[in-house]
Amino acid sequence: MVASLRLPSLTSLLFPATTRYPAALRRTVCLRNRPASGFASGTAASTDAHRLRSKQAVTPRSQDFNAWYLDVIASAELADHGPVRGTMVIRPYGYAIWEAIQEYLNVKFKETGHSNMYFPQFIPYSFIEKEASHVEGFSPELALVTVGGGNELEEKLVVRPTSETIVNHMFSQWIHSYRDLPLMINQWANVTRWEMRTKPFIRTLEFLWQEGHTAHATPEEAEKEAKQMIEIYTRFAFEQTAIPVIGGRKSKLETFAGADKTYTIEAMMGDRKALQAGTSHNLGQNFSRAFGTETSWAVSTRFVGGIIMTHGDDTGLMLPPKIAPIQVVIVPIWKKETEKTGVLSAASSVKEVLQAAGVRAKLDDTSERTAGWKFNFWEMKGVPIRIEIGPRDVSSNCVVVSRRDIPGKAGKVFGISMEPSTLVAYVKEKLDEIQSSLLEKAVSFRDSNIVDVNSYEELKVAISSGKWARGPWSASDSDEQRVKEETGATIRCFPFEQTQGIKTCLMTGNRAEEVAIFAKSY
Amino acid sequence: MVASLRLPSLTSLLFPATTRYPAALRRTVCLRNRPASGFASGTAASTDAHRLRSKQAVTPRSQDFNAWYLDVIASAELADHGPVRGTMVIRPYGYAIWEAIQEYLNVKFKETGHSNMYFPQFIPYSFIEKEASHVEGFSPELALVTVGGGNELEEKLVVRPTSETIVNHMFSQWIHSYRDLPLMINQWANVTRWEMRTKPFIRTLEFLWQEGHTAHATPEEAEKEAKQMIEIYTRFAFEQTAIPVIGGRKSKLETFAGADKTYTIEAMMGDRKALQAGTSHNLGQNFSRAFGTETSWAVSTRFVGGIIMTHGDDTGLMLPPKIAPIQVVIVPIWKKETEKTGVLSAASSVKEVLQAAGVRAKLDDTSERTAGWKFNFWEMKGVPIRIEIGPRDVSSNCVVVSRRDIPGKAGKVFGISMEPSTLVAYVKEKLDEIQSSLLEKAVSFRDSNIVDVNSYEELKVAISSGKWARGPWSASDSDEQRVKEETGATIRCFPFEQTQGIKTCLMTGNRAEEVAIFAKSY
Repeated sequence: MVASLRLPSLTSLLFPATTRYPAALRRTVCLRNRPASGFASGTAASTDAHRLRSKQAVTPRSQDFNAWYLDVIASAELADHGPVRGTMVIRPYGYAIWEAIQEYLNVKFKETGHSNMYFPQFIPYSFIEKEASHVEGFSPELALVTVGGGNELEEKLVVRPTSETIVNHMFSQWIHSYRDLPLMINQWANVTRWEMRTKPFIRTLEFLWQEGHTAHATPEEAEKEAKQMIEIYTRFAFEQTAIPVIGGRKSKLETFAGADKTYTIEAMMGDRKALQAGTSHNLGQNFSRAFGTETSWAVSTRFVGGIIMTHGDDTGLMLPPKIAPIQVVIVPIWKKETEKTGVLSAASSVKEVLQAAGVRAKLDDTSERTAGWKFNFWEMKGVPIRIEIGPRDVSSNCVVVSRRDIPGKAGKVFGISMEPSTLVAYVKEKLDEIQSSLLEKAVSFRDSNIVDVNSYEELKVAISSGKWARGPWSASDSDEQRVKEETGATIRCFPFEQTQGIKTCLMTGNRAEEVAIFAKSY
Repeated sequence: MVASLRLPSLTSLLFPATTRYPAALRRTVCLRNRPASGFASGTAASTDAHRLRSKQAVTPRSQDFNAWYLDVIASAELADHGPVRGTMVIRPYGYAIWEAIQEYLNVKFKETGHSNMYFPQFIPYSFIEKEASHVEGFSPELALVTVGGGNELEEKLVVRPTSETIVNHMFSQWIHSYRDLPLMINQWANVTRWEMRTKPFIRTLEFLWQEGHTAHATPEEAEKEAKQMIEIYTRFAFEQTAIPVIGGRKSKLETFAGADKTYTIEAMMGDRKALQAGTSHNLGQNFSRAFGTETSWAVSTRFVGGIIMTHGDDTGLMLPPKIAPIQVVIVPIWKKETEKTGVLSAASSVKEVLQAAGVRAKLDDTSERTAGWKFNFWEMKGVPIRIEIGPRDVSSNCVVVSRRDIPGKAGKVFGISMEPSTLVAYVKEKLDEIQSSLLEKAVSFRDSNIVDVNSYEELKVAISSGKWARGPWSASDSDEQRVKEETGATIRCFPFEQTQGIKTCLMTGNRAEEVAIFAKSY
């Protein structure tokens, strides 16, 4: 029965076959850094020298953030370019991160009363035209189907950039009175926006997302829903992805085309640019042709980009354990063929012990690569914990555990017992520590890069130094526009968390109710 | 952690709020059959009279199969028409069946070594043109994007009808040698085919599916894969959906455009027409620009249509327990307000006991509708088991259990103890019995409607009487074409299960290696 379905461990499902190092990686890593001949299969010989060379496979993050991002996506095989400009192929390792996002959010959506369903992606062009503010927001980004089955269509079709218009067309058929409310649904779908400047995960011509749509009997209920969903996104960001987003309300200028209010979570990437990582809209009655006040809310594959750009270092990706497709990689090390059997057998039982305990563990037992190569490879892929097992470890019934987030010797602990309950407890504790540590590091990075400002001059200094500026704001839309033109920064949000006390608008000197956060953004 | 995520029961997730009878049902059932005034809320008064009237909401299956199918889809709120001709909105109850299909298959795919990923849906038109046999098969069904971001595109884009061409474009970039093989992936996606004659779930302009794509080092491995996947589909059909499909190989004429071999599972619907419910193709090297022999295999939302059309009766839908979104509905019955609290409390604890045991149970405790109305409603929705609890049941600590698959009094058992372990054991046993019974019934229906034929005359008689014909076949493609033109039947497959012995082609009298199955189909 579906209800009693027991799911195998995620890792064994994701990477069930023997380790194959996919071709793209060979291209980007191996061909550039072909190991010198003489490395015996599976040995740890000359690890350091080899590692040094391999490191050059990914542009150091500290050197060129954008190049690092693109290198990591290619080398870790997260995604590839599709044949049509601006499209993206999401590869298994990247898709597994999206699946972890889906798994978590899907449960939360259902727990809060939403049912999944599916709307067609083709929307009559007239639907978009009907929504004056909506068409203004989306028209430049539309892909249009004009030919179907060999014939020119009478009415061209929009490939959905978002589904408010079609959802509300259907809602108006299903909702006949307030007794039919609330109506709370969600869909997991692909959407298309004809973006000119694209970047993998962050802005692609087609992307995957979930879009929730609800209709409520009262404006209060809708407002509560819109805030509840941004709260779910916030908790997800903090607890699962270790991204300390700042939740808040968008300014009028930045509000979603057609919404009364837009709530957002804003994340600071490693280059200190802001990423809008999720939004929730109180649509009021703007789309509604029937009863009710509506909301919509969405999180997309952009979140995967946010995870990549929040964590990581010069070596590559660094994945928070809770959403890492592989939490622990086990690398067996042997020099002589006589040692091989014992080492592999110990490594294999460590893997089974961890998997049985619900840890997503992978054993990299291929003989094609050296241990050093494997170390680099899995570090670059951001696997939180590496376990090494050599002949001496087998004799002493111990393993060596390394943390991805503490590079070098400092992160390496020798002599952890292989005894199952000890090992499992140790690994789980370390995974939790890594999860917390990544979040703490991100919080500290975020907080040290937000400057409180009280004048436009201070704001400009903060922005030009690459930081975020936070200051009281009650100025006009045109002032906001001016800030954008002069500094490149926009109001990311009026944060939910506000300090008490009288505030003075940094631009006008007038009284201000709230502080706003300004930043350059993706 | 994702790995340790505990999933709430599917039912509570799907239908978490209080029962709301959605508007479409009100339209199709209530408005046509508005209950006479005087029915007290929640009482069982005049149930029979009311039931009689409500039954007319769905056209009897025995009277008009197609009208029944469409009525069930509307009344059970499985799907609705989208605004664009031929498109379909999959509503929560219908989508939940698709989710059950996804859950099962997704695990099986991963267990057999496939990773999920995602390819863009826009394919350059030139990709399709390159595949001569493919373009012939799909060209008439293509939707084309010709405008993007306000500009006419230089190359028009195909909205994927299937992904072989783009998958293989990417595979050729990822596969550099036989060491990169096998490459085994799957995607869950929407696809578009510009169908002229559409029918909800069975044939829609856009539908949801999974498409697996693999590349292998040897033809033998590819053949093994193609057969393995059709075997997974077959087991799924039998064990989860109680559809006794017949697996086999397509004739050359019916083979997928571009494949060497197509394997299929063919299901007999309630009107005895055949439904192709899943296919697996050995593509040989036809698409491959690089190394390897390839396969592709798919199951779509059409399967939901197959489930509807296999089971069911004049009253409506009949869902196999393993894929039923709701396995047990609990209907509390009271006449006096004084009885209400006790009955509701007992009903509620029965629900919790069942849910805790992994049974997808729903409590319908609304006061808006009579018990009789609820009986009809949940019968029409095909819920396998109904539990009634009235004041007398509360006193005796018992419930009444009714089976959907045994209509009327015969399926009703009184005096089942509410004691948790007894009730859970009883319900689980009954769910298993219903699952088996639906399959047995379908097998018996199928077998009594397949006629073994040894001549074209016998074939024509069988087909014209609405049955399937099974007979030895080694005739030409043009003979096959002639059968199609003269009888409307096609070769559904050469079944994997063949009888031994010398056979004589029913058409030519020549020796035949195999029997083929002929039938009219969807």
